[in-house]
Parts: sequence; C-alpha cells; structure tokens
Amino acid sequence: MSNQILYFHYLYRLHYTFDSVTNICPKMADTPVRFGILGCANIARKMCRAITLSPNSVLYAIASRSLEKASSFVLENGFSPVEVKVYDSYEGVLEDPDVDAVYVPLPTSLHVRWAVLAAEKGKHVLLEKPAAPNLAELDRILEACECSGVQFMDATMWMHHPRTSEMRALLSDAQRFGQLKSIHSCFTYEADHNFLQNNIRVKPDLDSLGALGDIGWYCIQAILWAANYELPETVTAWRDPEFNEAGVILSCGACLHWKDGKVATFYCSFLTNLTMDLSALGTKGNLHIHDFAIPFQENVASYHAGSQFRIPMMSEHAVANDLPQEALMVSEFAGLVKRRNGDGLEPPEMWWPGISRKTQQVLDTVKASIERGFQPVEILS
Amino acid sequence: MSNQILYFHYLYRLHYTFDSVTNICPKMADTPVRFGILGCANIARKMCRAITLSPNSVLYAIASRSLEKASSFVLENGFSPVEVKVYDSYEGVLEDPDVDAVYVPLPTSLHVRWAVLAAEKGKHVLLEKPAAPNLAELDRILEACECSGVQFMDATMWMHHPRTSEMRALLSDAQRFGQLKSIHSCFTYEADHNFLQNNIRVKPDLDSLGALGDIGWYCIQAILWAANYELPETVTAWRDPEFNEAGVILSCGACLHWKDGKVATFYCSFLTNLTMDLSALGTKGNLHIHDFAIPFQENVASYHAGSQFRIPMMSEHAVANDLPQEALMVSEFAGLVKRRNGDGLEPPEMWWPGISRKTQQVLDTVKASIERGFQPVEILS
Repeated sequence: MSNQILYFHYLYRLHYTFDSVTNICPKMADTPVRFGILGCANIARKMCRAITLSPNSVLYAIASRSLEKASSFVLENGFSPVEVKVYDSYEGVLEDPDVDAVYVPLPTSLHVRWAVLAAEKGKHVLLEKPAAPNLAELDRILEACECSGVQFMDATMWMHHPRTSEMRALLSDAQRFGQLKSIHSCFTYEADHNFLQNNIRVKPDLDSLGALGDIGWYCIQAILWAANYELPETVTAWRDPEFNEAGVILSCGACLHWKDGKVATFYCSFLTNLTMDLSALGTKGNLHIHDFAIPFQENVASYHAGSQFRIPMMSEHAVANDLPQEALMVSEFAGLVKRRNGDGLEPPEMWWPGISRKTQQVLDTVKASIERGFQPVEILS
Repeated sequence: MSNQILYFHYLYRLHYTFDSVTNICPKMADTPVRFGILGCANIARKMCRAITLSPNSVLYAIASRSLEKASSFVLENGFSPVEVKVYDSYEGVLEDPDVDAVYVPLPTSLHVRWAVLAAEKGKHVLLEKPAAPNLAELDRILEACECSGVQFMDATMWMHHPRTSEMRALLSDAQRFGQLKSIHSCFTYEADHNFLQNNIRVKPDLDSLGALGDIGWYCIQAILWAANYELPETVTAWRDPEFNEAGVILSCGACLHWKDGKVATFYCSFLTNLTMDLSALGTKGNLHIHDFAIPFQENVASYHAGSQFRIPMMSEHAVANDLPQEALMVSEFAGLVKRRNGDGLEPPEMWWPGISRKTQQVLDTVKASIERGFQPVEILS
C-alpha cells in the first residue's frame, strides 16, 4: 500500500470507520444500556462501532431528519433494521421508552435544545464536544441532567484510554515528576478546501467556536487534566488568530497562568498539518506525547517520560488497550448509567460534568480574551 | 551503572568533560588556527576539547586572573605547559601575536569590553552566548569586528550539527513541509540551590539576562532558524515570569507573531527538569526534537518528522556526526578565519554575525515586553 493510501486509511479509521461487527465482545449477562443516536454525523459511525464493542451497551435507535438517511446509515454500518430502530425525528428517539441513553453528535448550536430535552425525557446524555457554544448553555444542559437525575458526559475519548491514567500517575508522582511547572498542547489539522467552505465546524450558526471548539477543546481539557483540574487564574489569547470570512476562528492560541507560577500554552488550527502534542514539565520529570487525542495505533499508545534520575534520553512507555478508546468511553459512561439505574437511588456521578464545565469555562475565557483585544481575562473559580 | 550515576555522567559530559586528548584528529598540513581562551569557565573545558578535536585549530593560550588557576586548568585538561601558554591576564592573550582567535566564555557583562579589545587587537572572536546584555553592546562588538576585519561568531553549538542542516532541508521542502505556521521551543533545567545562590547566571552584574540569556537564547535562535531568520513583527512576553531577589529572570516565556500569521512560543526556566524541545509545524508536515540544543548522544542525533502523505505516526531520522557539535562549530569558525587569513582580501563572513544580531534583537524585545507589563512590542527590521 502506498504511503498516501495508508494515510487516508488512517484518517478514515480516525473519523469514519465502522469495521465488521462480527467480532464484538460478548454482552454482559444483565441488560446492556440501550443507546439512541441523534443524527447521522460522520463521527456517529465511529460511535456506532464503539457502542457495539463496549460490553455493557447496545445500539438501539438512530434518528435523522430523513428516514431514508437513517435507514441507509443503519445498513451501511452493518446492522439490520430489525436490530436498530430508525426515526425520522430526534423526538422519536427521545420518546422511545426503551432508549436509556443518547449520544448527541449534532452541531454545537443544537446541543442545548436536544440535550436538555433528552434529559427531561429521562435519557442519559453522552454529548459530543465542544459541549456548548458557551458556559451559559452548558449550564442549562447540566442543570437539566441534574434535575432529571441522568448521567452527563462529554465525548472526549482520550480521557478514557488507559495511557491517560498511567500518565496521570506519573504526573502525580512527587519523586518522578515533582511539581508541575509548564504545559504545552497543540492540536492542528489541515482542512481541505471543501471543509473550509462547507463543514459545520466553520459555520457561525452551527459551530460558532470553529477550531477553538473542535480541537481547542481537546487542548484545554488536556491542560486542565495535567493541572489536576485546577483552574488557571488568567487566560490571555495570542494575538492575531485566523478567522474565515464569517468570523469563525480557524486558528488561535492562548497562555494560561496559575497563581503558583505554573503556565500553559495551547495552539489549535484548521490550517496546519496534523499535530496532537502534549507536553507537561515538572521540576523533576517531564512527559511528552505526539498523539494525545487520537493514538496513532488503535490497540496501543505510548508516551515518553524524562526524569532527572536517568540519562535524559527519554524513555518510551507503551500502554496496551483491549478496546479502542471510544469503546472504553462508552463502557465507562454506560457503567455510570447502569449504576444509576441499578438501585434507583445512586445520584449521577458529577466528576465528568465538572470536567466538561471547567473546559467550557476556560474555552469561553479564551474567546473573551480574543474579543477584548488579547487582554488577560480572569477566571473566577 | 545506576541511572543516577548515568545521569550525572551525562551532565558532566554536557558541561565539564575534557576526555583524553590522545586520540585527536590529525591536524591539517597547513597551519591550524591558534586559539586563546579568556577565562577558565566550566564551559571552557568542553571548548578545549572541541578546539583539539577540530582538525583546523589548536589551543595555544589560556588566561585567568590567577596564573595558578590557568596552569591548573591546562594540566587538568590533559595539556602540558609546553603546549599551551598561560597568562594571568586576558590582555596577555590579546597581546600575544601568535594568537589568531579567541574564545570568550566570560560573564555576559564583560563581553563588550573584551570582545571589542580582542577585535581591535586583530583577534577573531568566538563569543559565548548570550552575545551581550543588549543589542547596543552587541553592535559595538560587531562594529569592532567589522572595522578590524576579524570574524565573529556566537558559540551556539547545535547550529553546526549536521542534524540541523538536514532539518533545515525538511523545513524548506514545499512538498514535505509546506508553509511554516507555528514553532514552539523550550529549554529548561532545574538549577540546584548552590547554582541559584552563586552562579554567575543569576547575578545582575554578571549575567543580567538570567534564564532568558542563558537558555532563552537557544530557544529564540531556534525559532529564528525555523523561520529562516525572518524577524517577527511583534513579541509579547508571557505574564508572571519568575525572578530571584535581585530581579534576575529565573523563568519566562513569550509569543512571537509574524505578518503572515505565523506564531511562535518559547519557554525557558532554571526551575524545571531538563527539557530541550523544538517543534515546527507546517501546512504539510511537522518536525519534533527533544534534544535540540545538546543531543542526548554525542555521535548521533535524531529528529521526528510527520507528513501528510504518510501514516502520521512520525518517522525517526538519525543523523550521525563524526565530531561533537562543538568541534564542528570550532571547525567552521576556524575555516572562516583561515579563509580570511588566506589571501588577506576575503572580508569576514557576515552570515553568523547577522544571526547573532537578530537573536539579540528578539531577546531584547522579550525583555522590553516584560518591562512594559507584557504588552506586545514591535520589532523594527
């Protein structure tokens, strides 16, 4: 296979693949969580597969504004119409009493409407990132979920990879890593002409946050993760972000500052070759990865660690995963849903909603700093 | 050997080693450039070895304010007093008619005095970085060198590693790399208590630029190198650098912006574990190294390149070097000196002085931005 074909094969796997589902994990003996999907976005293909691979979940229904499109989607992804119900409206899925949870890959501007309605209908909500166009809308969603007692999680997949928890252990190790001093994160890809003209991610009425929402979300969440979710004190956007004609951000960056002198930077862009870097530097060690958001390989991911008590030629650590990170995410989400449904008393788990909220808060502050001429903007925690 | 011992062995090699000189390269048939060294700084040990390893240079004289210190230095570094002349004053070296060139590892505040005098005495000048405390002083040095027709070069070693030119070829390749969009550079090390109390690098009267001069110099020069020496339009220092009690910078960072939308960031610190990162991102490819300033290995150095026409698992490229990078630097400098001396007509080569000047100009602008409360400061090119 030529390099170019291999590359497109990789991209396809990243965004669109739904491989054979003949080799799925056996379902747990008890009832799996039944998922409905609102919309047939490309990312939904990847999530169909993830729901199927996850041992405690099953794809139950899918909706599109066109029944034909929903039916085609079901067939194209290897299901029969007997297995998966199709609806020609999102309401159809939300009204279906057998749907336990919904995955919402709709454009960001529609999140508040459909995620709130889903919560009100008692459906647990797995929401594609960015969670919302702004914190006010995310708060409406989170409040609706809390009121209805349903679980909320944003669909940031890499957070659920076992590499992530192994790296977390490194960062928390006073001997190997010391005190965190600096973080740098970067997520870029080069969008083609068609994307830059037509994709929802560059349309102000659909995904008004552009690159900041689509990929800056990952960078910000990665920085917060490295900082153990301590919010920075101030955020200062870099000068001269790139915008499209409609005013949507195509590239931008920012500096984040903490009270203890810790600093972080991130850069996100639709106009630069694929890069997914994360570096965290401590007083005694450091951490580097070049594929933090989507590992280059599906079943193993590595990180590089340097420490003062070793030749500083960094050591590579590989972490195997039995399921793709998106299936691990679904499995974790479904586990929380089942815990909630189990005895009818357990409240929704608030760890993941809290992370989404902090991510959105920093993201909003980056936007505010851009709007205020790149002045530092304080975050009130 | 334990990891800790290996690490100290590595540090020792980075800063202090002068291994046996019994296995030196044969000198060229024609007269080598005769070097004098002003001062017995630790870095001078590494440079003694480099001058000896370089095929077109020889260590001829060394000066210290104490003759005893100079004599000990000669013996400790494997020379006999017959081979290398010792002087108890820097003037002694500069007055010696057989000294062709001087290497100046003195504290930065002394550069202008001794480099200008060296030039006036007709000695070619290889000057330790940072070149000067500010551009005005560097310009006095450069003017003195130009007036006297002597070669100037700052002693930034990695610029002379063959990896650097191979990476330059990648960055210049429109097919593999495309247009440069973003650069990030980071040089940090964790200085110990003794360093932070006593080292010249934290003394305002000796190295007033602190971490910005000592290691920020590398980051800035690396950014300019990646940008093909195009000066940025504005420089904005990050908020909240760390200072010692005397007001010397212990850590800082900045964002650099170019007219075409290109951005760069760097971070330097005496308070963070050893990190030497350089990333350059283009529209079609990217470049990553984790040991840009001092390769982890002495005889081979690698870089990672990603390209859109390949699976984006980055490929590693190793570049072998027959001599350590510091010896390659000495060799290149001596070659320019010999060219100048050869026919008596060739003017000094202005490429390297131009790079030093641009580096100093950006460095000064970072300092100005810090002093102006982290406001963007324009660079007039």
